Amino acid sequence: MRKLDIQSIEDIAIGAALLGTGGGGDPYIGKLMAIQAVEEFGPITLLEADEVPDDALVVPTAMMGAPTVMVEKVPSGEEVIGAFNTLKNYLGQEIYATIPIEAGGVNSMIPLALAARLGIPVVDTDGMGRAFPELQMVTFHLNDVSATPMVICDEKGNNLMLNTVDNVWTEKLARSATVVMGGSVMLAIYPMKGNQLKSAGIHGIITLTEEIGKAIRGAKAKKVDPIKAVLDITGGYELFRGKISDVSRRTVGGFARGESKLIGIDSYKGKTLTLNFQNEHLIARTEEEVLATVPDLIAVLDSETAHPITTEGLRYGARCVVIGIPCNSKWRTEKGIATVGPRYFGYDIDYIPVEERVMNKRGDK
Amino acid sequence: MRKLDIQSIEDIAIGAALLGTGGGGDPYIGKLMAIQAVEEFGPITLLEADEVPDDALVVPTAMMGAPTVMVEKVPSGEEVIGAFNTLKNYLGQEIYATIPIEAGGVNSMIPLALAARLGIPVVDTDGMGRAFPELQMVTFHLNDVSATPMVICDEKGNNLMLNTVDNVWTEKLARSATVVMGGSVMLAIYPMKGNQLKSAGIHGIITLTEEIGKAIRGAKAKKVDPIKAVLDITGGYELFRGKISDVSRRTVGGFARGESKLIGIDSYKGKTLTLNFQNEHLIARTEEEVLATVPDLIAVLDSETAHPITTEGLRYGARCVVIGIPCNSKWRTEKGIATVGPRYFGYDIDYIPVEERVMNKRGDK
Repeated sequence: MRKLDIQSIEDIAIGAALLGTGGGGDPYIGKLMAIQAVEEFGPITLLEADEVPDDALVVPTAMMGAPTVMVEKVPSGEEVIGAFNTLKNYLGQEIYATIPIEAGGVNSMIPLALAARLGIPVVDTDGMGRAFPELQMVTFHLNDVSATPMVICDEKGNNLMLNTVDNVWTEKLARSATVVMGGSVMLAIYPMKGNQLKSAGIHGIITLTEEIGKAIRGAKAKKVDPIKAVLDITGGYELFRGKISDVSRRTVGGFARGESKLIGIDSYKGKTLTLNFQNEHLIARTEEEVLATVPDLIAVLDSETAHPITTEGLRYGARCVVIGIPCNSKWRTEKGIATVGPRYFGYDIDYIPVEERVMNKRGDK
Repeated sequence: MRKLDIQSIEDIAIGAALLGTGGGGDPYIGKLMAIQAVEEFGPITLLEADEVPDDALVVPTAMMGAPTVMVEKVPSGEEVIGAFNTLKNYLGQEIYATIPIEAGGVNSMIPLALAARLGIPVVDTDGMGRAFPELQMVTFHLNDVSATPMVICDEKGNNLMLNTVDNVWTEKLARSATVVMGGSVMLAIYPMKGNQLKSAGIHGIITLTEEIGKAIRGAKAKKVDPIKAVLDITGGYELFRGKISDVSRRTVGGFARGESKLIGIDSYKGKTLTLNFQNEHLIARTEEEVLATVPDLIAVLDSETAHPITTEGLRYGARCVVIGIPCNSKWRTEKGIATVGPRYFGYDIDYIPVEERVMNKRGDK
């Protein structure tokens, strides 16, 4: 157990935006929500998963929708409390703690803001170890935890309680409701017991994001290369360096979909990288080869500062480093790859772990 | 209080299909559901609204979706019981009775089947006195009764509880869910107290539909013109006689939308009638003039038998009589016309009561 203060939040916001792999919403907006809550209600209690009683109820809280919409529809802290309390009343049981469902600019911060406001702890666990665009794309789903009962709230005061036959139906129904409700909504979802959290979650995620944020922030003072600092702490690989030459993006079906192109610089001169995304980056490839795919993480960083850049933050001419980070091993199972691998997203590409792709390439040379 | 037996159901099915004005779903499917329930559980108790205690809870039950889909997705009696019981548990109170939300082939029968199965009464009241395509198009809405909390169930076992800020949001969210759930779903909606039912409902609707059905069935034996028998009992007007020459219909946004054309016969020779529909008939017009519009009822009847024909039952060459029936006076208010008048449906036509349109025309001659 430890406390998260405003400096922690600043660092978590940066690290989570990096693990958010282009999606997860604007880190600035999320940060402001959490900082405001801590200023008003004091530091947040962060528990390790082991500190949660096996039969205690834990409920992840999150925003759902296209990050492009979230930027224009800044959430108040109140909406998610509405979703959380509606679910609590329906379940007829106190909720012991909340957790983030994923790492990402907004979704790392919403549980922190809620925890501060309600005076409950956050557990240092999520369901992705990164960000993914759909509700069933969590390790809880791989362990047969039901996404429902779940509650969706919008800023107008509408709320929906879902009870579905499986988590894919949850995604379908919640996504269509999100579109009707204006493109982004607040969720209380995947209610689970402490023992489910322990066996199904990805642990230490908030601490990891904080350390990534600290490394990026501290690199300048320590006069180390911030990109190298990120690669060291995440176990990642540099995939490409280039300048953004094109971004096409449309908000469709409740997602931000599109692709961006980078023209190689330095040792990548003459090559072009294409990044495909659905909220998050899915595929990184040049004309010749695939460099990385989901579920491995593909992050675009500012080449000077190593600050992560979300897909909606990509600007023509910006100099970037694209890195690949091995995903949590929970995703590297048959069910994991079926749930979040490149074929699920419609790409005719086999999943090969990013470290193998990098090694094969080095072997070629 | 009286009992409804299988003969009553046969008659109600025909009369309700007529007041269903082309929509409301296949009367045959609805009838089978209700008859099966009565055969298994015995006759249904029909109450007059005055017999319901003021503080008793009444919950309408219905199917929602495109009638074109309902034909292919025959409901079991169980799904709507799921919706009804989920709402009962949420409200934490026994439900005294159910009612139909509208008159129509399927939606007149679902509350009867449910009442037989659960051994509760049906009240002789609905919220339309006809059928309309959208959830806020009920006289309960005109009297500020909230459509929510409401529950939607599909045949797969998914269920949604909605709590919305207004009834137009209920329609939007429920409609999009209906589309995702396969085009038709079961509802428990507009929970209300006995006193709300009394002041906001349209009373005697089941009895009226039964009398219409009886009149159509009995005309042959009595050797009277069945069309005349229908006009007498409904206070309606013959608008047109013709043969179906064209029907275009598509299922879009959860509705069956389209238009049908009739080439005039007998005294209507040389004229063409166009009927526009969104589940139900909205507008009846010739090249020269508008003959009737919502909220007045536009029904297409077989010219020999006076049996009502739904929009999905319209067949090329069929000889039909189109009749117009004045709607209940509750619809002829400013809020009523704003809710269900021709302009709401996108037609640049003022609402003029059908009897005035007919009188004006007769005056012309």
